[in-house]
Amino acid sequence: MSGEHSSKQYDMDLETIRSKVLLMGGLVESQFQDAMIAFRSGNVAQADQIIKSDENVNNLEVSLDDACSHLIVKRQPAANDLRTVMATIKVITDLERIGDESTKIARAAKAISERGLATVNHYENVRVMAASAGKMLHDALDAFARLDDKQAIRLIAEDAVVDHEFRSVMRNLITFMMEDPRTISSALDTLWVAKAIERIGDHAKNIAEYVIYIVEGKDIRHTDYAAAQLAD
Amino acid sequence: MSGEHSSKQYDMDLETIRSKVLLMGGLVESQFQDAMIAFRSGNVAQADQIIKSDENVNNLEVSLDDACSHLIVKRQPAANDLRTVMATIKVITDLERIGDESTKIARAAKAISERGLATVNHYENVRVMAASAGKMLHDALDAFARLDDKQAIRLIAEDAVVDHEFRSVMRNLITFMMEDPRTISSALDTLWVAKAIERIGDHAKNIAEYVIYIVEGKDIRHTDYAAAQLAD
Repeated sequence: MSGEHSSKQYDMDLETIRSKVLLMGGLVESQFQDAMIAFRSGNVAQADQIIKSDENVNNLEVSLDDACSHLIVKRQPAANDLRTVMATIKVITDLERIGDESTKIARAAKAISERGLATVNHYENVRVMAASAGKMLHDALDAFARLDDKQAIRLIAEDAVVDHEFRSVMRNLITFMMEDPRTISSALDTLWVAKAIERIGDHAKNIAEYVIYIVEGKDIRHTDYAAAQLAD
Repeated sequence: MSGEHSSKQYDMDLETIRSKVLLMGGLVESQFQDAMIAFRSGNVAQADQIIKSDENVNNLEVSLDDACSHLIVKRQPAANDLRTVMATIKVITDLERIGDESTKIARAAKAISERGLATVNHYENVRVMAASAGKMLHDALDAFARLDDKQAIRLIAEDAVVDHEFRSVMRNLITFMMEDPRTISSALDTLWVAKAIERIGDHAKNIAEYVIYIVEGKDIRHTDYAAAQLAD
């Protein structure tokens, strides 16, 4: 009975952590969406708001890491249970980095806006890839919430799409820069935005890999496991 | 006695993990150095070698994460000891990302080289910042090896220098691109190299923060702790 009790306590503690991770996930998801809106509109106040909100994400990272440590010390989980905690710790790191990338988008939005009237922000260029990466992030959080390894496998494949879109954005921007060298600075700002979006896709992929680790117990990082599953 | 024995076993297991982390650190350090040499020389075979060697880094990441999990399950460390394991898990992630960044430098070296005779690689532009980031990485690994929090605090301040050098590289490259738009593509390749170097500085800073966490028990991420210590 004592074993069962302790395991129930473990489950409850873990559930608390999982809810907080999803809260953090929701936060970085809105941060990313808001950053893209600020980038489109050039609204400096909104960009500043996003940069400021990164504090909340950072605080959640620190307190969640701490909660995971406490859980391990208090509940001394066995190998299977520990796997979930370890993967959760990694997910937290990726979410924090997504927050950082959204902050970078907000900073670029400000830089472009403050450079004045003559600048082009090339929003249309990155719109599609932002939608793809945003969907990846959303699906990754959803897969984490429902422990859905099938969805995780599907979204890992989408990272190649975002990478492809990134290269297309870059080619477009190079064309712009060559045609009108005066737009080089603002085109580079947009290139940093595109790079940040591409990185958000990478982090969403990482989260999906950790979901597969939790559900299937397989560490598929650096393998073609997801592609092989889809090909089956 | 049993407690002491188990604690000794824990220390031995932890020491094995720490040595392996330092091995991984040495590997990514050479990877970074080699990537910069390949970038300077445009040697495609060497660049390919670096890209291939990333497999070893990835394998070390997976096996070290596994070793850390085993240590926790087998030794059930108390809060203080667990702190070291948790920080080590985070250090491993940063080392793996440094490997990724060096791979990106190697890919850019290939791209520039394969683009043919007319390209400029702007190596001189990034030489200084590569030296700064390389020193940060070296000092971070050294601080981790010797658990030297003072050194960790010092090197965190150096990240601002690398960031400053990055912005200077970017301004230089923009000037080049505006003067001769035909060099835009190769200038962008160099810009990605500079970005990768800047990221390596960030990861070295992260490692230093984890060293401080291990030694002082303070989670100083997202704070001005290091700057305040230096000002004292």
